[in-house]
Amino acid sequence: MAVLPRAVTPLRWDGRRLHALDQTRLPHEEAWLELTGAADTAAAIRRLAVRGAPNIGIAAAYGLAMEVAARPGLGALEDGADELRGARPTAVNLAWAVERVRAAALRASVATMAAAARAEAQRIQAEEDAASDAIGRHGAGVLAGARRVLTHCNAGALACGGRGTALAVVLALAERDPDVSVLVCETRPLLQGARLTAWELSRVGLPHALLVDGAAAGLMRAGEVDAVVVGCDRVAANGDVANKVGTYAHALAARAAGIPFVVAGPTSTIDPAVTDGDGIVVEERGPEEVAAWGGTAVAPEGTAVRNPAFDITPAGLVTALVTERGVAAPPTPASVAALLAG
Amino acid sequence: MAVLPRAVTPLRWDGRRLHALDQTRLPHEEAWLELTGAADTAAAIRRLAVRGAPNIGIAAAYGLAMEVAARPGLGALEDGADELRGARPTAVNLAWAVERVRAAALRASVATMAAAARAEAQRIQAEEDAASDAIGRHGAGVLAGARRVLTHCNAGALACGGRGTALAVVLALAERDPDVSVLVCETRPLLQGARLTAWELSRVGLPHALLVDGAAAGLMRAGEVDAVVVGCDRVAANGDVANKVGTYAHALAARAAGIPFVVAGPTSTIDPAVTDGDGIVVEERGPEEVAAWGGTAVAPEGTAVRNPAFDITPAGLVTALVTERGVAAPPTPASVAALLAG
Repeated sequence: MAVLPRAVTPLRWDGRRLHALDQTRLPHEEAWLELTGAADTAAAIRRLAVRGAPNIGIAAAYGLAMEVAARPGLGALEDGADELRGARPTAVNLAWAVERVRAAALRASVATMAAAARAEAQRIQAEEDAASDAIGRHGAGVLAGARRVLTHCNAGALACGGRGTALAVVLALAERDPDVSVLVCETRPLLQGARLTAWELSRVGLPHALLVDGAAAGLMRAGEVDAVVVGCDRVAANGDVANKVGTYAHALAARAAGIPFVVAGPTSTIDPAVTDGDGIVVEERGPEEVAAWGGTAVAPEGTAVRNPAFDITPAGLVTALVTERGVAAPPTPASVAALLAG
Repeated sequence: MAVLPRAVTPLRWDGRRLHALDQTRLPHEEAWLELTGAADTAAAIRRLAVRGAPNIGIAAAYGLAMEVAARPGLGALEDGADELRGARPTAVNLAWAVERVRAAALRASVATMAAAARAEAQRIQAEEDAASDAIGRHGAGVLAGARRVLTHCNAGALACGGRGTALAVVLALAERDPDVSVLVCETRPLLQGARLTAWELSRVGLPHALLVDGAAAGLMRAGEVDAVVVGCDRVAANGDVANKVGTYAHALAARAAGIPFVVAGPTSTIDPAVTDGDGIVVEERGPEEVAAWGGTAVAPEGTAVRNPAFDITPAGLVTALVTERGVAAPPTPASVAALLAG
């Protein structure tokens, strides 16, 4: 198969403003936001118009760069950094990217800090684009021979640099084997699989089928899945993985079915400061995401809701952690440390 | 706690017609259907207005009785039985109840077959009501001490005789312990948990919280669940369980968390003719249940869908199978056979 394209570039820097595809409007509408500073970028991240761990890092980097371009000085830098860091708690790329831009600005003079911050944001985006290609290459090696690949949520071009993380692996596999197809879990509550991953795969022309999250385990047990590949929002030092809620159940089912469960992400997703998954803060979001649909209640009025946005998959269930620097298979404190060192 | 009421009686026989609560309209509207024969009863079962393995058996029994009351004779009996049996393939109660009414009619004369069929349908309903009480009692014994109980789909009064199967267990537990609360999985694609189980629990006043199906495993891993209890659509001779899609993933997560996974159902749900789960036909339903919401597409137009309505949980993951005749803990060919013999 010929080289498959990037489905979309959802964050476009025009030298002054960040243009962001509003992912809450997909797949029915391609609406673009024009972001101008820390506050509107943080708001776009909070309401998931901009999402995906690597992508919210890239957007936050530009958000902070735009903030110091508008108001050069330490006050705007620190206020903007605080606001962006607080937009979502689970993904570590957000704090990592904000810190890189902040440090670059602090190393510059007041006269050059805006340019330094902007350059650092562009460097982060370029690095994440390059990381996606390397992740795809490494992951396709790990999963060579797998044809029916199941994924959860969206870890594609909409979520990450380049062609994404998990989807970069799938596309690289498909470039080597014309029989690759994808089972896409819809990913409740916000349906990133149905709305975003199915949209990306239809744009690049890769065969795929949608299923409810609860159907994944049964299809694995029935022998209809060769491998599972997902992205990640934060990886602890021991290889425990925080990813979109629903991921852990797929990892258990993959283990029971004897098929590989692969996690793909840039090393910016690894948080060496967190020993294991118990140290990762799991964001709990509002009840309306579960109890209502497009503003209409599906449950009886007043129904209480639990809505954790992520779950933790223990490292012991992960066949391989695939990064741009190589593969930890399986992830352990030693193999994860080796990735970070190398 | 005082005795908890039955949330609702969704199938009411007036001596001539069957009044059925249209479950597709809940929780927002309580609309009743008046069913008159095999064809409209089968249609109500197919479109899930009447659902739940024991309940579709009860409804089909009345459907066949009404058919032979209108047209006494062998032709109407066999045609009606065929039509009702074919309405849904997975639940065995449907074929079981139809066969009981058919056999009762065949034993009678043409002059008395309508009365015999009607009496048999009423007997089936009375037996399933009584089975629910016994299931609740047996299950509460198995789960004594569990306070935070997770369930999937709806196995309550809307699905079964009496107060249901899984929910009868939960209500019996709650009658013994005022701190019992329920985690309700929404149960995609048709949201029987959000629409029906939450509605039943709010009617009986039992504390509960709704979650997406994919959140269950993470909450179990986090130590927030004491036990899982579900109903069943068909149980094979070896104890493998067919139940609403999503069940198998909960069983894997319960095992990983070291908590009980209990399946509750009347013995009418056991199919001794099927050796194991591989022999159970899993109904695959239409794509619109997954790809659209209230008639509005959520995925890009033309997205392919996999929509199995059930999955198979192997007996090895089931802590106990709770029936009206007692408990198979764990279910094995021998313990299941003993239940059927007893």
